[in-house]
Amino acid sequence: MRIGRVINSIWATRKADSLIGTKLMIVQLLDRPHGELGPIIVAADIIGAGIGEKVLVTEGSSARNMDNFNDSPIDSTIVGIIDEEKDKLAEVSKHA
Amino acid sequence: MRIGRVINSIWATRKADSLIGTKLMIVQLLDRPHGELGPIIVAADIIGAGIGEKVLVTEGSSARNMDNFNDSPIDSTIVGIIDEEKDKLAEVSKHA
Amino acid sequence: MRIGRVINSIWATRKADSLIGTKLMIVQLLDRPHGELGPIIVAADIIGAGIGEKVLVTEGSSARNMDNFNDSPIDSTIVGIIDEEKDKLAEVSKHA
Amino acid sequence: MRIGRVINSIWATRKADSLIGTKLMIVQLLDRPHGELGPIIVAADIIGAGIGEKVLVTEGSSARNMDNFNDSPIDSTIVGIIDEEKDKLAEVSKHA
Amino acid sequence: MRIGRVINSIWATRKADSLIGTKLMIVQLLDRPHGELGPIIVAADIIGAGIGEKVLVTEGSSARNMDNFNDSPIDSTIVGIIDEEKDKLAEVSKHA
Repeated sequence: MRIGRVINSIWATRKADSLIGTKLMIVQLLDRPHGELGPIIVAADIIGAGIGEKVLVTEGSSARNMDNFNDSPIDSTIVGIIDEEKDKLAEVSKHA
Repeated sequence: MRIGRVINSIWATRKADSLIGTKLMIVQLLDRPHGELGPIIVAADIIGAGIGEKVLVTEGSSARNMDNFNDSPIDSTIVGIIDEEKDKLAEVSKHA
Repeated sequence: MRIGRVINSIWATRKADSLIGTKLMIVQLLDRPHGELGPIIVAADIIGAGIGEKVLVTEGSSARNMDNFNDSPIDSTIVGIIDEEKDKLAEVSKHA
Repeated sequence: MRIGRVINSIWATRKADSLIGTKLMIVQLLDRPHGELGPIIVAADIIGAGIGEKVLVTEGSSARNMDNFNDSPIDSTIVGIIDEEKDKLAEVSKHA
Repeated sequence: MRIGRVINSIWATRKADSLIGTKLMIVQLLDRPHGELGPIIVAADIIGAGIGEKVLVTEGSSARNMDNFNDSPIDSTIVGIIDEEKDKLAEVSKHA
């Protein structure tokens, strides 16, 4: 999986029937080694992530193992919202 | 999924039988972090995207979950045409 | 799919049984945004592409949806030979 | 597969039901040609890797061929902990 | 597929049960456009490739279409050993 941050939502009125009703969010991946910004992708979201939240994204065929995406043309899905507080605590304790 | 812009159509008279009749479009991905141009791919299109339109592209095995592509050697498909107007409004409201 | 150019053939006498008899070609991908040369891959070919020809390549599991590759360890296949003439005409008409 | 080093654990209270109970670790890939740091990913772990350990990571659909991940939205899994001592011995013997 | 060179073997005593007995080799990919060294991966090997040999590697789900890897968490497999001599002859004849 990859870590990313939701930066926007996206609309596509003309789209595949199987995507109708699916919430699509623009996510900036945070996977670069030295903290640089990574690629920008679009992920389906059923977890309810909001703009600005740090999320966990799954890509490829595994992205369809969520909800009823199995027969959808989806290759990226938000599978979790990262608890930023705990994330910081772990960072601090690591350098204690 | 990735955001891209259709930049051309492409012809291949000699091709896999299962691709006969499939509309193929050249798409420039717009997935780089700072707005630079991304890789150039070729995607199957049944949505009816035109040259210059901003599109949503699915890659990998999920790209076959459209129309009757299931048994085709297709690894990229246009799954939506992005509404550029709403896209700008969201951008404006984000910085309001 | 990706656009590429066949630059050589390749021989591997000791190989997986299921690859015996499969024609393998070295292809330079032409997928970089500003026309730079892309990665070099090896693709199975049943279309009959020759060295120097511009081809359409499918990667990943979709590459096995050709001929009887379904049970082969193949992750890249040439699925079409691009008509370079029409390709140029389209380029010209685009800038007319 | 890729070689990587576990650099942290990660928490996501709100996540896909099928990920509940799955240990997720942040792994820095060590796959760059000249030893530079590679991308940062998140991998499921049932082997019991600790922070600082060098691990073997599988990505894509193969990552689900572990434990009961088959129906999970997992695209990266730790599949082994690398014996660093033997790794060094091999390096030494290679240059003897 | 990608071309690579075997640069080392690798040991992981603690690993997925389904990998026990599987020979794992470290392979440097030679897929960069101008001959630069590519990423370093780990591939399963049942062909019997030795350190220093030039090999053909398959990645992704296709890598499991070898031997009895179907249910293994393997995403890279050596599928052939490249005949370097013929490779050079072809290079020479191309520039004759």
